[in-house]
Amino acid sequence: MLLPIDDPFDPRIEPYRDIRERDLKGRGGRFVIEGEVVLRTALLSGRFAIESLLIAENRVEPLADLIAKVPSGIPVYRASRGVLDGIAGFPMHRGILAMGVRGEASTPGELLAAAPANALFIGLSAIANHDNMGGIFRNAAAFGLDGVLIDGASCDPLYRKAIRVSAGAALVTPFAQGGDIGDLCDALLAAGFEVLATSPAGRERLAEIEPAGRQAVLFGAEGPGLPERILKRLRTIRIDMRGGFDSLNVATTSGIVLHHLAR
Amino acid sequence: MLLPIDDPFDPRIEPYRDIRERDLKGRGGRFVIEGEVVLRTALLSGRFAIESLLIAENRVEPLADLIAKVPSGIPVYRASRGVLDGIAGFPMHRGILAMGVRGEASTPGELLAAAPANALFIGLSAIANHDNMGGIFRNAAAFGLDGVLIDGASCDPLYRKAIRVSAGAALVTPFAQGGDIGDLCDALLAAGFEVLATSPAGRERLAEIEPAGRQAVLFGAEGPGLPERILKRLRTIRIDMRGGFDSLNVATTSGIVLHHLAR
Repeated sequence: MLLPIDDPFDPRIEPYRDIRERDLKGRGGRFVIEGEVVLRTALLSGRFAIESLLIAENRVEPLADLIAKVPSGIPVYRASRGVLDGIAGFPMHRGILAMGVRGEASTPGELLAAAPANALFIGLSAIANHDNMGGIFRNAAAFGLDGVLIDGASCDPLYRKAIRVSAGAALVTPFAQGGDIGDLCDALLAAGFEVLATSPAGRERLAEIEPAGRQAVLFGAEGPGLPERILKRLRTIRIDMRGGFDSLNVATTSGIVLHHLAR
Repeated sequence: MLLPIDDPFDPRIEPYRDIRERDLKGRGGRFVIEGEVVLRTALLSGRFAIESLLIAENRVEPLADLIAKVPSGIPVYRASRGVLDGIAGFPMHRGILAMGVRGEASTPGELLAAAPANALFIGLSAIANHDNMGGIFRNAAAFGLDGVLIDGASCDPLYRKAIRVSAGAALVTPFAQGGDIGDLCDALLAAGFEVLATSPAGRERLAEIEPAGRQAVLFGAEGPGLPERILKRLRTIRIDMRGGFDSLNVATTSGIVLHHLAR
């Protein structure tokens, strides 16, 4: 259903207006998907409903196969580059946007109840950087993680930039967000998970850990890391590094850990 | 040697002017170091000479211990926030900058001649993204890599953003840049290195490779990867991933590979 838009103030494309400003204010139940790769992933995954698409005129033909995959009934708006930039409020180089619907968010308990007997989860504490959040999700999807639990102090994985950096993985790997990392840890333990905590001063080397049954690994923000009260309760693991250098980026750390523990 | 600067057009701080514009045009033998973490790493490493520093007034006292580590004879310019922003051409939130000197660049041959008998190198082909270049260097330093060979199609690891993302590692791990990835591969083989090529379709799993003697691993740009002519000549390695998802980020891939092969 291709529908032309000639006026940046057309009420049908109102949710796309002032994209950056709304990144900060929130979108009340919607999130923005941008770019071809991410949108293909979103359509393939099907975890989130897509409300509409907005495509630059000159990309309609090259993206015909993608547009053909859009379920009928979902409007695909087409606009000239000028109108598109006027809607978004800045030059939309990617030329393709979609509006996703958050729907009812899973709770950590629901996500854990659905986990298989042999499952790998991660838990995130205070990951406030969208690049890191996106990078962690990209790794989670690459290694087929079963779920991501995110504390309330972390940023939103459905934030526009986080989705883009994740290459769409934030729309693939199941996650639940809310509460304190201590609560998430309790929930994992109650669900029969072995919970490992990453720390530069971890007592065991990652290489010595065997993948087994239900396992979860917790990651803290770069710099502060996981809270001491969490590290005290759990098996702690480290990645051996050359002394004297700043520790690894948290997204890279997640890649190394998940590569080792993936089923 | 703390020297006050009151005029953004003071000729002594000329190299700091219009930072972003010069990122594009180049700096004729100089490079910019920004932020406390990176500058501490640069001073500790000592691989590159530092010509001068430029610090915001309000950071002089909190950074007194860093300033004390600056070799005498190197001017440390201090300026108000307003003057600093006027010099740089945009708000310099970090409030601390330094000008590094490239000096005479090592050639790949010189770097290889200095390699120990048990050495781990990487080779980079067409890594054009500064975030990825910085991320790869950060991993290289974290795992104590002996050297990085970079082809002429890759970006400059001493570009401002690449240094920042590397957390200063681009000023720590020795590298040499130039030529074609095929030439770099030849030079590694001639120096007695086993050369492994990473590819999503690699014939061997990373986990099966043993660290041994002189080894080097080649990485290509995300998307195209390494050229076919390179993959045909070498042992190729892959990281097993969940089918259907876009491949890992190249910086994360380097972290996983180096973690496995580090001495």
